[in-house]
Amino acid sequence: MDLKDFLQQEDFILKCQWGISMMNAKLQMINAELSMRYGRKVIHSYSNRIKSYDSIAAKLRRKGLAENAEEMEKHVNDVVGVRAVCTYTDDLYRIAEMLCAQRDIRLFKKKDYIRNPKKSGYRSLHLIFQVPVSFQEEVRWIKIEVQLRTGAMDYWAGLDYQLQYKKENREAKNIGKELKAYANAIEQIDSKVLELRKRIEAI
Amino acid sequence: MDLKDFLQQEDFILKCQWGISMMNAKLQMINAELSMRYGRKVIHSYSNRIKSYDSIAAKLRRKGLAENAEEMEKHVNDVVGVRAVCTYTDDLYRIAEMLCAQRDIRLFKKKDYIRNPKKSGYRSLHLIFQVPVSFQEEVRWIKIEVQLRTGAMDYWAGLDYQLQYKKENREAKNIGKELKAYANAIEQIDSKVLELRKRIEAI
Amino acid sequence: MDLKDFLQQEDFILKCQWGISMMNAKLQMINAELSMRYGRKVIHSYSNRIKSYDSIAAKLRRKGLAENAEEMEKHVNDVVGVRAVCTYTDDLYRIAEMLCAQRDIRLFKKKDYIRNPKKSGYRSLHLIFQVPVSFQEEVRWIKIEVQLRTGAMDYWAGLDYQLQYKKENREAKNIGKELKAYANAIEQIDSKVLELRKRIEAI
Amino acid sequence: MDLKDFLQQEDFILKCQWGISMMNAKLQMINAELSMRYGRKVIHSYSNRIKSYDSIAAKLRRKGLAENAEEMEKHVNDVVGVRAVCTYTDDLYRIAEMLCAQRDIRLFKKKDYIRNPKKSGYRSLHLIFQVPVSFQEEVRWIKIEVQLRTGAMDYWAGLDYQLQYKKENREAKNIGKELKAYANAIEQIDSKVLELRKRIEAI
Repeated sequence: MDLKDFLQQEDFILKCQWGISMMNAKLQMINAELSMRYGRKVIHSYSNRIKSYDSIAAKLRRKGLAENAEEMEKHVNDVVGVRAVCTYTDDLYRIAEMLCAQRDIRLFKKKDYIRNPKKSGYRSLHLIFQVPVSFQEEVRWIKIEVQLRTGAMDYWAGLDYQLQYKKENREAKNIGKELKAYANAIEQIDSKVLELRKRIEAI
Repeated sequence: MDLKDFLQQEDFILKCQWGISMMNAKLQMINAELSMRYGRKVIHSYSNRIKSYDSIAAKLRRKGLAENAEEMEKHVNDVVGVRAVCTYTDDLYRIAEMLCAQRDIRLFKKKDYIRNPKKSGYRSLHLIFQVPVSFQEEVRWIKIEVQLRTGAMDYWAGLDYQLQYKKENREAKNIGKELKAYANAIEQIDSKVLELRKRIEAI
Repeated sequence: MDLKDFLQQEDFILKCQWGISMMNAKLQMINAELSMRYGRKVIHSYSNRIKSYDSIAAKLRRKGLAENAEEMEKHVNDVVGVRAVCTYTDDLYRIAEMLCAQRDIRLFKKKDYIRNPKKSGYRSLHLIFQVPVSFQEEVRWIKIEVQLRTGAMDYWAGLDYQLQYKKENREAKNIGKELKAYANAIEQIDSKVLELRKRIEAI
Repeated sequence: MDLKDFLQQEDFILKCQWGISMMNAKLQMINAELSMRYGRKVIHSYSNRIKSYDSIAAKLRRKGLAENAEEMEKHVNDVVGVRAVCTYTDDLYRIAEMLCAQRDIRLFKKKDYIRNPKKSGYRSLHLIFQVPVSFQEEVRWIKIEVQLRTGAMDYWAGLDYQLQYKKENREAKNIGKELKAYANAIEQIDSKVLELRKRIEAI
């Protein structure tokens, strides 16, 4: 089916929103449980998006695939995305574990870009889940990418994202290098902040 | 365990909220799907509550049971309640069916007070589901009562509820009788409104 | 300016949403205050909409006006609409009074279709307010129509609305007449329900 | 009036929530306007709180004031607090300006702890506004503290807050010193991130 038409179908959008609302409910409950356990707010902000036609088409092209709904469903795992931003790195892994322990969703793929950052310097923990969506008397499994990040990783990623649309430019290449170098500084903040928190807790 | 203490435990409250948020997500998606299918808003308002200590204790007493957490868990099915109000009676049954078709929750009990109104004249469709709640690495099943009503049933029930606290009074008994007689008028409105909608759709 | 272009401008949409969110905040606070005062939920559901291009254009045409942004701003008062549905008629007037007492908004027009129903049988209380919207360092006053209704008026209106698109049809004309007759029954319910509530309160 | 009783009065809580909801509506609209203007999400997370009895009492004691409602209303400016967290420092000042330009609220006090950090190293922009609250036919002006911070300032503040309850301890004093030194590192991140964003925008 034509990709653009497919993405505009009301029932496709409904299924995506269904998945988002289910995943958000899970994240909120995990946040409530952990916040209660540790006596501090664990997840600081939530966001979500359905990938735009332009981004999906570009991704299919980069992978050398045809631009249609079938290829998208097979090969694009982040059409539906949910993001949670925390303060501390260890909380990210704890949330990931708790998501994986949920029996009604299945982990499809895990990409740990915190331990293995992307070339660009990008760091985040990505989990792709398959989530059951009840729609018109049948259950369909849709993929949802959950991105877990610290605040520090998040604003690094924000800069990187703004840069992406200007990549051809020479100055952009310079900034890109600098940003990459800067990823290390960001990582050190995360470590330092985590270390301080652990020492405070140990008092 | 002492009932009052049990109800105030943070993890009990969290589990209830988890159940509410899961059930709300389901109702919202069902609403989105049906509203899309029929081109009209199907669920008009949502509400939810965790039953108060006083109401639970009163219910246990009425049933001749001891006032503790174990008896509550076994015998009080509406500790957690979710309500959806619609315009048309047939939508209530459609929502009920769609909830029952969800594979991740189990219907525990169904009480059709629309076809078989209570003595008082009370009408509503009650479904008690068992819902899985992931908490501290284990899955617990909790009961949630879903009440489905039309707007007409809802304001009848509102009057009846206000009357409950004054039952000993003689004037209250008179109003009670009148209210019961009025339940029939309410029922006729629901039938008439449904009939008109069907005739409009058939044009 | 061309009407369609105007309605799609991001800053027009932002201003409308600003107005909606301000009016919603007011309604919610009034609801909280009244619900506390009377010990019962006063507003049962909220909704809002920005009128579609098609509806605005049709309204301008009916009024014999040119289809552009200037005429719309001058002559269409319900481009932005907010609705609150209550159980009891007297609550509607109380909310209206409390809105009118707010010093930061101005009442522009009041249409009491409860005391003076439309020919069709339509009943609701309409208040058009001018609301200050701070945008790009200046304050603009936009109009917002607040519709206050009981649940009974609301589903009558729902049927009437569904009928509107089929008006040419002969059967539709019959249903229209029946619906109009039915408006009286609806009115009697509202009176009866209000009377019962007052008697319960007086106990 | 007794402070504890005063804080538990339903109408006090309602007035506070009224203020919070009004201020949140303003921040959300400012966010919408700026996000549209700059093509990036400006405010990343919102939170709010009504100060607890314990914190208010402690503050009154520190100031050598009597513990009652009158002294609180006169001398405690942050009983109601709203916080917005952004990525970039310049956005904080822009939001502050836009809040100050709103004609229906009045700036009562401004404390720029970004340019003049507290001794502890704490940085944030604090604005105390007086906000009109319509309640029971009269308008009361209540104070609301708006805290504007970057994400980096926010997690520094989070650590500092966790430390506060353990201040007597010797290890806590050491961590305190380290945290203060660390405030500079945090400041440099904010500057660097802002510089990179400006260079990217200038391409």
